[in-house]
Amino acid sequence: MPPANPAVDTADVHALLERGRSLSTPVLRAAVGRLAAPMDTVAAYHFGWIDAEGRPADGDGGKAVRPALSLLSAEAAGATAETGVPAAVAVELVHNFSLLHDDLMDGDEQRRHRDTVWKVHGPAQAILVGDALFALANEVLLEIGTPEAGRATRRLTTATRKLIDGQAQDISYEHRERVTVEECLEMEGNKTGALLACAVSIGAVLGGADDRMADTLEAYGHHLGLAFQAVDDLLGIWGDPEATGKQTWSDLRQRKKSLPVVAALAAGGPASRRLGELLAADAKSNDFETFSEEEFATRAALIEEAGGREWTSQEARRQHAVAIEALDGVDMPEKVRAQLTALADFVVVRKR
Amino acid sequence: MPPANPAVDTADVHALLERGRSLSTPVLRAAVGRLAAPMDTVAAYHFGWIDAEGRPADGDGGKAVRPALSLLSAEAAGATAETGVPAAVAVELVHNFSLLHDDLMDGDEQRRHRDTVWKVHGPAQAILVGDALFALANEVLLEIGTPEAGRATRRLTTATRKLIDGQAQDISYEHRERVTVEECLEMEGNKTGALLACAVSIGAVLGGADDRMADTLEAYGHHLGLAFQAVDDLLGIWGDPEATGKQTWSDLRQRKKSLPVVAALAAGGPASRRLGELLAADAKSNDFETFSEEEFATRAALIEEAGGREWTSQEARRQHAVAIEALDGVDMPEKVRAQLTALADFVVVRKR
Repeated sequence: MPPANPAVDTADVHALLERGRSLSTPVLRAAVGRLAAPMDTVAAYHFGWIDAEGRPADGDGGKAVRPALSLLSAEAAGATAETGVPAAVAVELVHNFSLLHDDLMDGDEQRRHRDTVWKVHGPAQAILVGDALFALANEVLLEIGTPEAGRATRRLTTATRKLIDGQAQDISYEHRERVTVEECLEMEGNKTGALLACAVSIGAVLGGADDRMADTLEAYGHHLGLAFQAVDDLLGIWGDPEATGKQTWSDLRQRKKSLPVVAALAAGGPASRRLGELLAADAKSNDFETFSEEEFATRAALIEEAGGREWTSQEARRQHAVAIEALDGVDMPEKVRAQLTALADFVVVRKR
Repeated sequence: MPPANPAVDTADVHALLERGRSLSTPVLRAAVGRLAAPMDTVAAYHFGWIDAEGRPADGDGGKAVRPALSLLSAEAAGATAETGVPAAVAVELVHNFSLLHDDLMDGDEQRRHRDTVWKVHGPAQAILVGDALFALANEVLLEIGTPEAGRATRRLTTATRKLIDGQAQDISYEHRERVTVEECLEMEGNKTGALLACAVSIGAVLGGADDRMADTLEAYGHHLGLAFQAVDDLLGIWGDPEATGKQTWSDLRQRKKSLPVVAALAAGGPASRRLGELLAADAKSNDFETFSEEEFATRAALIEEAGGREWTSQEARRQHAVAIEALDGVDMPEKVRAQLTALADFVVVRKR
């Protein structure tokens, strides 16, 4: 096998993302189309394929990093990209099941610039359609009918349990004044790492990979997920609203105990202490909703001064490095290795 | 094989139910014990193992028909009863996932004489723990790691999708003035028949049964489930509160469009029309909550006069007969056949 030429092979991350989207979306839409009315319509609204009145829409399908990873995962095992499609679809179904339920549990009224399902169709439909997508995810894998499909479903189930553990931690942390950096990393590993790791391992399982190879790809995905979330946490405070589509200081407005915040609080020193006092007062404040831009800017500046921003940037780079290193442990076509590396690079440099 | 002697072999249905309970409960508790805090506690409360303050309790575990069926299912395939235990546990986990979510969707505040989980621990925990039980059900089967386990999980997934379809129908029927007998039977087949059918087929799958045998047992279970629900619908109106533990006229108080009601409305004639007028007025009534015993008794008498009670009794007997007949199509130890018949008999004569 010729050595990879990153300058040629890894250039087009967007083509990889687009391939993942274009191969998996028709299969995802067909799977969702199996749901009985009105669940099919509610799900189509959630995915952005129709608007609240049922008219066709051109929803923002998100970055589609996970589907791209599932296809590369199958190729890493020497199978075709198409072999990874059911893995991509199953993972997207689980991801969206969790979004439907999390939005309701968290009371979030907006997602991707649209009203969430429970706001438009009511809480019962959000619960029911979430349940249906979860069941459908297992169905899409198990109907393949091979032992590999059984192994892939088992890994998906394990990842889903971690996802649920992560949401449970997230909810419990909301009611606590202090969360340690370790707790935050554990929660993010469960909420973001587990499913991303699953996406990049079960494509390979469907492609005939043994457990050792799947575990190695899973390790890559887990650390990539942590890098991804660290970058998300940075964008949630300092992201450009034009690029992210979110408000300025978005995570601060939601009082999120994200990595930069918990790292800043753990750092000690005058800025850290001042930040702690402000956030403690904010937690009890009744007029938090009406805070000015300046007040959020003060908090963001204190987080930065205490080192929370720099620590989180370094954490993203650390996790990125560990992810790339994990790939050394597995035999795969050099082109695929280069593409997985390129996707990891994209995850840490992205602006949205 | 000697012919069965029903007078000897089928006498002790309660022993069969007790065996199902005693073999499956420790495994169920161990599975639930794997959930991260506080989900393990919330689930233990739901199952009745602890009270709202966390003190050990001796909950009413229900009739435990499904676990008994899963063990007999394994024996029907020539395997040990123990082989069916993961099937029994997985089915109970799915059943309880659906109870947690349904109680929240329907706004039901009481189950088995206790406050429901969403009342005690809040809606978010009801959603989250329901999700976790669903994931755990797949885990319990898939960790067996055999191709049979994969096939059993696929059947469980199909049954769960029907269960969700049934709940979607139930919700949509609530908002409609008229529901046909066929629609009611379809909904009950999904909500009750599918999981009972799954319980009595996947034990056999784990025990090495082929698809033909599993399908036949599933047909037995589907019709038994419809018989079970018809009896439940009768008990929901005319059951003895001492035996059922429910209020008098329980389903009428909840305005349930159960089989006796829809059959009476479909029957035509003076009592049917008078019932239709009363229920239409009830649907718009604001003081329905304060109705006297006599007013519910009037409605029950009209349902009976229009033939809804007799039709539902006959329906239970019809479904019972079809269930028993389905067993003819499958080769199994005569003792097991007699026990499955005895359980079917029990389902239609029970008073609670």
